[in-house]
Amino acid sequence: MDSDKAVTLVIGGARSGKSAYAEGLIETALEAAPGPAVYLATAEAGDDEMAARIALHRSRRGARWTTVEEPLDLVGALAAHGKPGAPVLVDCLTLWLSNLMVAGRDIPVETARLIEQLRCVSGPVILVSNEVGLGIVPDNALARSFRDEAGRLNQAVAAMATRVVFVAAGLPLILKNDG
Amino acid sequence: MDSDKAVTLVIGGARSGKSAYAEGLIETALEAAPGPAVYLATAEAGDDEMAARIALHRSRRGARWTTVEEPLDLVGALAAHGKPGAPVLVDCLTLWLSNLMVAGRDIPVETARLIEQLRCVSGPVILVSNEVGLGIVPDNALARSFRDEAGRLNQAVAAMATRVVFVAAGLPLILKNDG
Amino acid sequence: MDSDKAVTLVIGGARSGKSAYAEGLIETALEAAPGPAVYLATAEAGDDEMAARIALHRSRRGARWTTVEEPLDLVGALAAHGKPGAPVLVDCLTLWLSNLMVAGRDIPVETARLIEQLRCVSGPVILVSNEVGLGIVPDNALARSFRDEAGRLNQAVAAMATRVVFVAAGLPLILKNDG
Repeated sequence: MDSDKAVTLVIGGARSGKSAYAEGLIETALEAAPGPAVYLATAEAGDDEMAARIALHRSRRGARWTTVEEPLDLVGALAAHGKPGAPVLVDCLTLWLSNLMVAGRDIPVETARLIEQLRCVSGPVILVSNEVGLGIVPDNALARSFRDEAGRLNQAVAAMATRVVFVAAGLPLILKNDG
Repeated sequence: MDSDKAVTLVIGGARSGKSAYAEGLIETALEAAPGPAVYLATAEAGDDEMAARIALHRSRRGARWTTVEEPLDLVGALAAHGKPGAPVLVDCLTLWLSNLMVAGRDIPVETARLIEQLRCVSGPVILVSNEVGLGIVPDNALARSFRDEAGRLNQAVAAMATRVVFVAAGLPLILKNDG
Repeated sequence: MDSDKAVTLVIGGARSGKSAYAEGLIETALEAAPGPAVYLATAEAGDDEMAARIALHRSRRGARWTTVEEPLDLVGALAAHGKPGAPVLVDCLTLWLSNLMVAGRDIPVETARLIEQLRCVSGPVILVSNEVGLGIVPDNALARSFRDEAGRLNQAVAAMATRVVFVAAGLPLILKNDG
């Protein structure tokens, strides 16, 4: 972590190792400067796959981590749990976006609120997100709409982030590094 | 633009910011050497989404741009509108390919004609194209065929281009730079 | 080939040029140090598309290549055909994984056996694999499961490989180079 307030976006495909890579960034920072860290899961309660994922994250992570589950109010959770020097891992933006769409929220408004919050975080934040636009155009309209919104969200966060990393097969390609 | 005749290929996913990135390359060149530019849209007349896209491009671009719409005869349009020193933005190759397939054209022949034309352009050309092969194999045969043709087209243009850029989340990764 | 025992993973989308790139790595090595090479195709007998692909590979390659077809026992084939100084091209891991799943094999066990075999190869091995996780979440459960397994397999091989390359439009991005 080059800065106390760095915002890092880690994008990649399904099972690309992006979450483990993002955790590794924070673990490395914690070795240099021990302290607490927050795992902010955007899981819907009752999602079996996400429950398994959170359990995997718990087992993989050290004891310093606190887990927070927040499917919709990511902005509020960032405000409540961001502390100076304490890194926050948001996993993941794509699931948050999906939850917002299911709940009928206004995506541009929510995106703008997130960006605003990220501009004034008190500690480093690492956000994990899926890249979903590199396949064939989906047949169904909802999937196309989701793909468009996911691309726009990634662009908006990437534009204000200090660091952006594309992960494939567990390995990073640096897209941006202003840190 | 390093050269008057540079050919640049910008590839990326849906909503990856590839078109805005390509426009930015030309806008930067126009600041250094003011002059006209051509936006060559491969839209089918009557496509609402493309009409919206062209309108968005118009609003984003400066007054120096001329818009040309040509769904099939991209080669002829390049020959007619390419002028020494005047950059042309082709948006996008993937839609052109789709139009060719719907019209029953011979794709290898059309690809060869495009490559030939790109070898003798009189001004810089930037071509935008989708990467569509990084998802699961599509169920339907037409989508598989399209995916194959799109990959081959990208490879053929990339092989002769002076510069190739992969865009993700609005940020570039340079794949080739011979300029 | 920097080392006699280098393991290289080449990943990319459909029709990204990854197989031709991988062949090119070996052809370059053979120019420096002439000798035999093995093309290990993971094709199921009777697959027309794969038969065409193998025929294409044959026509593209020089006379030094031996072709071995092995849909399931990739580990055994690597043990049998790997010779000191003789490069082996495995094309591709994704098809092998698909064959294993159809045959009901235990994927983690097979992956562990492959990794173990790759650690003790006697000559350089280049493995080609598809990245399939960068599109929208597939509708059907089998496709989702395949996508997960393919991502895990790529990560496992990438973690032990000396070199990992992402290919798009026929052009390489280096993800790892310990060679």
